[in-house]
Amino acid sequence: MTERKPKEARVREDLPAIDPARLRGMFDDLSAIGGTPGGGVTRLAASREDGIARDYLRDWLDREGFRVHIDQVGNIYGFLDLAGAGAPLILTGSHLDSQPLGGRFDGAYGVVASCEAVRSVRAFGEARSRPFSRNLGIAAWTNEEGTRFQPSTLGSSVFAGLYEPAAALSQADRDGVTLEQALAGIGYLGTDDPPSRVESYLELHIEQGRRLEDGGCAIGVVEGNWGTVKYVADIQGEAAHTGPTPMKERRDALLAAAQLVILCRTLSDETDGELVTSVGRLDITPNSTNIVAGHVRMFAEFRALDSARLADGCRRFEGAAARVSSPGLSISLRRTTERAPGSFDSALCNLVEAVARIRGYRTMRLHTVAGHDAVPLRAVCRSGMIFVPSVNGVSHSEKELTRPEDMEAGATVLAGALYALATGTDGL
Amino acid sequence: MTERKPKEARVREDLPAIDPARLRGMFDDLSAIGGTPGGGVTRLAASREDGIARDYLRDWLDREGFRVHIDQVGNIYGFLDLAGAGAPLILTGSHLDSQPLGGRFDGAYGVVASCEAVRSVRAFGEARSRPFSRNLGIAAWTNEEGTRFQPSTLGSSVFAGLYEPAAALSQADRDGVTLEQALAGIGYLGTDDPPSRVESYLELHIEQGRRLEDGGCAIGVVEGNWGTVKYVADIQGEAAHTGPTPMKERRDALLAAAQLVILCRTLSDETDGELVTSVGRLDITPNSTNIVAGHVRMFAEFRALDSARLADGCRRFEGAAARVSSPGLSISLRRTTERAPGSFDSALCNLVEAVARIRGYRTMRLHTVAGHDAVPLRAVCRSGMIFVPSVNGVSHSEKELTRPEDMEAGATVLAGALYALATGTDGL
Repeated sequence: MTERKPKEARVREDLPAIDPARLRGMFDDLSAIGGTPGGGVTRLAASREDGIARDYLRDWLDREGFRVHIDQVGNIYGFLDLAGAGAPLILTGSHLDSQPLGGRFDGAYGVVASCEAVRSVRAFGEARSRPFSRNLGIAAWTNEEGTRFQPSTLGSSVFAGLYEPAAALSQADRDGVTLEQALAGIGYLGTDDPPSRVESYLELHIEQGRRLEDGGCAIGVVEGNWGTVKYVADIQGEAAHTGPTPMKERRDALLAAAQLVILCRTLSDETDGELVTSVGRLDITPNSTNIVAGHVRMFAEFRALDSARLADGCRRFEGAAARVSSPGLSISLRRTTERAPGSFDSALCNLVEAVARIRGYRTMRLHTVAGHDAVPLRAVCRSGMIFVPSVNGVSHSEKELTRPEDMEAGATVLAGALYALATGTDGL
Repeated sequence: MTERKPKEARVREDLPAIDPARLRGMFDDLSAIGGTPGGGVTRLAASREDGIARDYLRDWLDREGFRVHIDQVGNIYGFLDLAGAGAPLILTGSHLDSQPLGGRFDGAYGVVASCEAVRSVRAFGEARSRPFSRNLGIAAWTNEEGTRFQPSTLGSSVFAGLYEPAAALSQADRDGVTLEQALAGIGYLGTDDPPSRVESYLELHIEQGRRLEDGGCAIGVVEGNWGTVKYVADIQGEAAHTGPTPMKERRDALLAAAQLVILCRTLSDETDGELVTSVGRLDITPNSTNIVAGHVRMFAEFRALDSARLADGCRRFEGAAARVSSPGLSISLRRTTERAPGSFDSALCNLVEAVARIRGYRTMRLHTVAGHDAVPLRAVCRSGMIFVPSVNGVSHSEKELTRPEDMEAGATVLAGALYALATGTDGL
């Protein structure tokens, strides 16, 4: 269970600062890669744009003296051996891929802030001849978004041993291009080892909701995550002319999909939103004005904090799908993601809270509804997350926005926590 | 009103035969162009495949001594001046474009049968030194299907003066490519005059329903067409993360589209199928698993034989769309097609029936639910249609099939009717 009452963490009060202008400059550089006229980005996993963003990060890591590794699923790591080879590793990072017409902050902010924070930690420690007991590393995980390739958090799940590398590489996008082909195409099908001896992973991310904004807090201490089940539903009907085909003889896959879209919403409404349901994507074949749809692939998501509620929603959805099936129209369901509700490391929560307090930021403890790379990382190390506010809670949209002062706050708290962890002054 | 009791048509009993093997050979050649593994074709209007099919037709017309014209919207005409320049023209034809993953017969069969029929008529008349009083022509109309460019029957509507050429050429497909660019790309943005002095147009087509099959008839005499209204509905919501965005705050364009899809079906069910409604296509933006859809463009069709029923269905659909709109979610409707129910030329109906009787084919009088190029042609000449059966009524599907004996029957009746018209022995 989540620990709600933090222990007092004994963090030293002299902590590194970060450089907001440098943070902003790097962020703006990245935002231009795959930038859209609407102010967002389209930087799908392992796309040309993702490749350019990866090159940008790799060049930065090289210039700053990091040891760079690319693993077999394209995860990028940059290591600073501050405590010497073989010392435990403190890892931080996020992802560079985005949704189509997505926001600039989702993922990219966490990567940029990690770069700025780790650089600041090194400089601060070296200036004070402070001994580091841990090495530091930055990770940019492949295909966090799950929009081009399913499932989401694919790179971090492979790293955490939760997903087979071969299975990940064989995932295909809607044009049939596999992740392996796409990574090879941009030069990121690596052969380096992923890091071993990772002790802690700490990820900074935008909230993508508006609890922090509504509560007037700059820093979210993420205690845990909602459970999530994602489905791919293949609805097989029969293509037919929309004119002369008698209505009673139609096997309309799009009509069945529409019924399921509405059912999903109804299941959520009945819980007053405690079960969150979504259908964001339908792949309709042939998707022609004059043809009754012969096939629809539907992508449905169910999320809840409470696992019994999640299970109940899924059970009812699966039952309804069976009832929508009829002679000549079949629905087959596949679960592509099953993420149980869970908790992040409570000691990391306490540390983040203590650093934020020293820095003078108001904090809130909350859960993440969305999935993040920090979730699979729990399988192999202590894992934690820091949230900063999203204006109006908007995310996965070109309108996504996190204010400069909140970007600075997040990076400052991340730097402080990394410093405490790397110098063994985290009091944990 | 449609005349149900045919006059006795005094068609001469010596009529041309067609060559089934030649018909089949040309049909198989065309079927291979854009052929799909599932036995259908994908030959979208003004696509590369359409261009190859057009070249095939043009080469055939050249070889057979036709005078070929390409007009400004890419309609292809082949003329045989059998009665001398300036004589009235009897035109026959159909279209070469198909639906995506469409059938081989829809359109292409009519073009191929026109070629075989006109060739047979010429040879038959010349062998008997029979004087022709009319010239003969074959037409292949641009973008009948209305799937790549809207509306359907675009080329024939321009020919008939019902649609402005400039407006037709500026129609764009879903990638923003205009019809003008697409035609230029395949070399079919013509400059020739379309034919003048067209006296009659007769089009042979597959039924796309199964009334002929159920009635055991080889030949359908098409008396008229159902009315059709087609809509494009732009549903504007707001893109948002499918996870943390509270359900009550979502402006889900796909949810609204699903409601309208089901409403369309309900409106039809309430008339027991006398109003036919369809939604075959949704263009969803961004269509990503993890994003509440910000925008959906929905394509909806309404059809009825009775204009009052059609008007009532449309009125209720438009009212419902207004009610689905809500703060932050707007729906704007545009009618892209308004085709009133109407009748084909009754004398042509009688002629087709008389020829079929002489040839020993059972006939049925029926209406077409789907639109065809013969409908706009009514604006400028006598226009008629012949149907042949579709197995199981399947169309706009790779499974579309018309049996060889029915293909032969249709071409035979077409040849007979064209011969009667061109020699003035149609008794009309």
